[in-house]
Amino acid sequence: MRYALGVEYDGGDFSGWQRLSQPGTAGPPTVQAALERALSEVADAPVATVCAGRTDAGVHARCQVVHFDSQARREPRGWMLGATSRLPPAVAVRWCVPVGDDFHARFSARARRYRYRIVNRPVRAALERQYLAWYRQPLDAQAMHRAAQALVGEHDFSSFRTVRCQAPHARRELQRIAVERVGEELAVELQANAFLHHMVRNIVGSLLEVGAGERSGAWIAELLAARDRTLAGATAPAAGLSFLCPLYLPECGLPEEVTL
Amino acid sequence: MRYALGVEYDGGDFSGWQRLSQPGTAGPPTVQAALERALSEVADAPVATVCAGRTDAGVHARCQVVHFDSQARREPRGWMLGATSRLPPAVAVRWCVPVGDDFHARFSARARRYRYRIVNRPVRAALERQYLAWYRQPLDAQAMHRAAQALVGEHDFSSFRTVRCQAPHARRELQRIAVERVGEELAVELQANAFLHHMVRNIVGSLLEVGAGERSGAWIAELLAARDRTLAGATAPAAGLSFLCPLYLPECGLPEEVTL
Repeated sequence: MRYALGVEYDGGDFSGWQRLSQPGTAGPPTVQAALERALSEVADAPVATVCAGRTDAGVHARCQVVHFDSQARREPRGWMLGATSRLPPAVAVRWCVPVGDDFHARFSARARRYRYRIVNRPVRAALERQYLAWYRQPLDAQAMHRAAQALVGEHDFSSFRTVRCQAPHARRELQRIAVERVGEELAVELQANAFLHHMVRNIVGSLLEVGAGERSGAWIAELLAARDRTLAGATAPAAGLSFLCPLYLPECGLPEEVTL
Repeated sequence: MRYALGVEYDGGDFSGWQRLSQPGTAGPPTVQAALERALSEVADAPVATVCAGRTDAGVHARCQVVHFDSQARREPRGWMLGATSRLPPAVAVRWCVPVGDDFHARFSARARRYRYRIVNRPVRAALERQYLAWYRQPLDAQAMHRAAQALVGEHDFSSFRTVRCQAPHARRELQRIAVERVGEELAVELQANAFLHHMVRNIVGSLLEVGAGERSGAWIAELLAARDRTLAGATAPAAGLSFLCPLYLPECGLPEEVTL
């Protein structure tokens, strides 16, 4: 039987999503290792998981989607409560639904949403500091929003991928990007069919230079056209980034929040 | 010279606001002790502070207001940046303004605002868990909001004060209370001229019983009329509570966010 899970985690406690060692051996703490350990205890048998989008060290997830197969007969609520009670405080399983054998958390996902949060003021954040990047210089959120619109559509995003990115090509469709200010806080929200490694953090890092007035708005379009990683802004820090959710077609039968 | 500060802190790291030992001696970590230590270093002389509202262990503050006197000649920006750089990560000074000698952070405050956040779902929170209380049973936010309106106005709030409350009387004017749901999260916002010890957490604890359907909405009005602490609901956990800000008259010359 195959199940899909909605998983929330605080990435600050982990070396990213991906398990770096074999189950049962020591290794740095990762969300995947913690989740597989908890599910294996509930199943009383080894469980392996596949996620919609692997997150880097320090990156959070509001609703990561994961699938796994198990012969163990448990109610969805039993998986959810049983796994959560065995997980560290920084991880919780929000829901569990049985899915078809052809469902794949990664390959069935049609889109992904991310949010990047920045506190923009002279002093660092104390409250919610775990979830915020800090930028001292005043940022013009409207200028960032306007400049970002050049990225919408299907493009080669080579300028915004890390050199360590292993994707076979850099074409992605950015469906939406919005920069909004509420008081001292800026949020950058993005939706794409898929993202390259460090793509969100590199886009945000470049938009910050526009927002601070160090670059013109047109620079973002120039960067995109150049397809050259060495030109873009610095990679923005991991703490500000949250993977909001992947999105699936209605026929997958997943909860509304992850359905297109 | 007298200065007012806007101070943000994550209460999870502290045994509340109030310094419990003399400066320079060992004691449990408190926000006041950390702030006075940082300000004294900036001033190169001892600094004592007075706050608008003492918060309990684990309670957060978005904008606590504090005043202090110092002969040290520093620009407001110097106090703000100098103190913040010497404070632990859980505390930051958001602003500093010079004020008149008759300004008093506590006695000049005309009102206070608090917010209480609850995640309402079968599993605990992982993200932002530092700032959320958790309630498993489905809550009817509208029923809570309606019931809460009985508390608005000037009343004797004895039913909602802790036995340890040292206030000489229990009359307070609750100016506003609103319960709102956004997705899985409920927020209770309150504004009063002043609050009794544990008043917000006891009101929330009682409203939770109404929201869960264990009590009728009329029970809140009955509790208020009874003036008997033993009847009210359990004190809601500290983590969900944030002191948003006190409010002052415009002539105090403080930033807009703390001005009536």
